[in-house]
Amino acid sequence: MEESKTLTERTADEIIAYILQEELKEGDRLPSEPELMKLLDVSRTTIREAVKMLSSRNILEVRHGSGIFVSQNTGISDDPLGFLFIKDKKKLVSDLIEFRMLVEPRIAARAAMNATPKQAEELSFLADEVERLYDQGLSHIAADTRFHEKLGELSGSLLFPNLAPIIFRGINMFIELTHSKLKEETIQSHRAIVNAVKKKDPVAAEDAMMLHLIYNRNRLSQEDE
Amino acid sequence: MEESKTLTERTADEIIAYILQEELKEGDRLPSEPELMKLLDVSRTTIREAVKMLSSRNILEVRHGSGIFVSQNTGISDDPLGFLFIKDKKKLVSDLIEFRMLVEPRIAARAAMNATPKQAEELSFLADEVERLYDQGLSHIAADTRFHEKLGELSGSLLFPNLAPIIFRGINMFIELTHSKLKEETIQSHRAIVNAVKKKDPVAAEDAMMLHLIYNRNRLSQEDE
Repeated sequence: MEESKTLTERTADEIIAYILQEELKEGDRLPSEPELMKLLDVSRTTIREAVKMLSSRNILEVRHGSGIFVSQNTGISDDPLGFLFIKDKKKLVSDLIEFRMLVEPRIAARAAMNATPKQAEELSFLADEVERLYDQGLSHIAADTRFHEKLGELSGSLLFPNLAPIIFRGINMFIELTHSKLKEETIQSHRAIVNAVKKKDPVAAEDAMMLHLIYNRNRLSQEDE
Repeated sequence: MEESKTLTERTADEIIAYILQEELKEGDRLPSEPELMKLLDVSRTTIREAVKMLSSRNILEVRHGSGIFVSQNTGISDDPLGFLFIKDKKKLVSDLIEFRMLVEPRIAARAAMNATPKQAEELSFLADEVERLYDQGLSHIAADTRFHEKLGELSGSLLFPNLAPIIFRGINMFIELTHSKLKEETIQSHRAIVNAVKKKDPVAAEDAMMLHLIYNRNRLSQEDE
């Protein structure tokens, strides 16, 4: 269907090809607008349109006065599975916990197999942070998410870290729906996961994560009562 | 961070809010450009920019001469996890099979629990289609994907159907990497899944899907030998 693409779309494709060919990474700077105009032989307007298109797909980021850069989490939106457009949020949150129960125990197991002592310490620090925020009565959503994201990073999988925005939305909607404050259980099960990672025990990590998610699922079904 | 958004971004947010509020579905038409200008009190240029932004996020689709519509698979790109930007495709394909092994057996189990006899027939038809293409020596990727997508639809989960583009990319990259033609095994295991769905047997469906994916994983590791 190449022929049905507009000039802007083809230019966007060429910029993507350039990123891949030059092996640009998150945060790397692209050539300037005039350089891109020359390189791709198109007008300034077309470059700007293409860059806008790629910005809304989270591939590029324009920092005004400073240039065009490759975005963090290149090509992954903050809502990759379109949850915004799913109406039945209660069922979605429940289906999301099922999804997490299928995937996250394995993520924890792989993290336990792979993590260096230094990385286990980083994970432990994130668990401490959740606890500290809890003690101070502050929101722990961001810190909680970072804990689960970190496990994805440590898993060594190329796919698991990219599930982070899905898991984040899962945690976020769960908390909104249950109006739940952090419970002692979350702190304990995070701690159990950290200990398993420190001991390089994948089975204990898997079990601790599963227990954590089952506990959340139960809290959700108690909402119905 | 609302204040840091541009007028175009805020307009795009308002269009999203309109879609949600009016409960517009895939394929529904939005108000015309002049109507949107009036409704959101912005210029034609701003509307156009916002619509372009939402098009590249697969939320809207402009059909020239006909209007602005809500996209199919609203808000889900064809590469939701940014696989394009992952360099080590071989490891990615392997990590994708692991992901599918975690998720798809459950999808098959739920499909077996939920599918009506008519839906089981539709699934059976898709399995026949894969076989027919195989017999004719034609590409079966699209049909194979539709088979796995259909299971997601039948699962009754709000999340599983949205994994379709991820599973599609998985099948696609697997076939590219292994240069593999469809094997007798695929036809047999699809058939086993269909039979389990027809019998409403979730355990048999789960086992058949797991066997199918393990077989694929083995083929991938044989590539190394």
